[in-house]
Amino acid sequence: MAEKLTGEERARELQPLLEAGWRLVEGRDAIAKNYSFANFVEAFGWMTRVALWAEKLNHHPEWSNVYRTVEVTLSTHDAGGLTMLDVRLARKMDELAGL
Amino acid sequence: MAEKLTGEERARELQPLLEAGWRLVEGRDAIAKNYSFANFVEAFGWMTRVALWAEKLNHHPEWSNVYRTVEVTLSTHDAGGLTMLDVRLARKMDELAGL
Repeated sequence: MAEKLTGEERARELQPLLEAGWRLVEGRDAIAKNYSFANFVEAFGWMTRVALWAEKLNHHPEWSNVYRTVEVTLSTHDAGGLTMLDVRLARKMDELAGL
Repeated sequence: MAEKLTGEERARELQPLLEAGWRLVEGRDAIAKNYSFANFVEAFGWMTRVALWAEKLNHHPEWSNVYRTVEVTLSTHDAGGLTMLDVRLARKMDELAGL
């Protein structure tokens, strides 16, 4: 089972994500990001690629989609907060969005 | 362009949806429903089928997904409220969920 990030890991792993547009969620140990695409096909196409990876990692995002935008929140429920699974999925999401 | 449902249409078209688990959203002219599936693959598989129909109808849902649940809100932005596009997409969503 994934374990919560240590203080050292947080500094090392989260900082690059925060610089890439991720933000810490208030009131819970989670990160969030808003993605914007050219249109619905691009937005849902990206979600589909992410979904296949999420299933493969057995780690799933909380996300909402309105037309060409997708808002994502990541946290590891079993661990009660951020783990390396969230870091990996966040990086993969950015990679799949071409960021 | 789709026009807002008339009083008569609302009575005729919305009632069956409300009986099928849709609800009126407070504070805006929209309907919403929570779907629950066996797992993420089933939930996202359904979203994918809905997405293809949404693009075909050129009418898109607001929706959020957390693992095996999907919460949907439908309204027609251009019309400022519920239209037959929402009724059609709502029916299609239920049909694709096997309801």
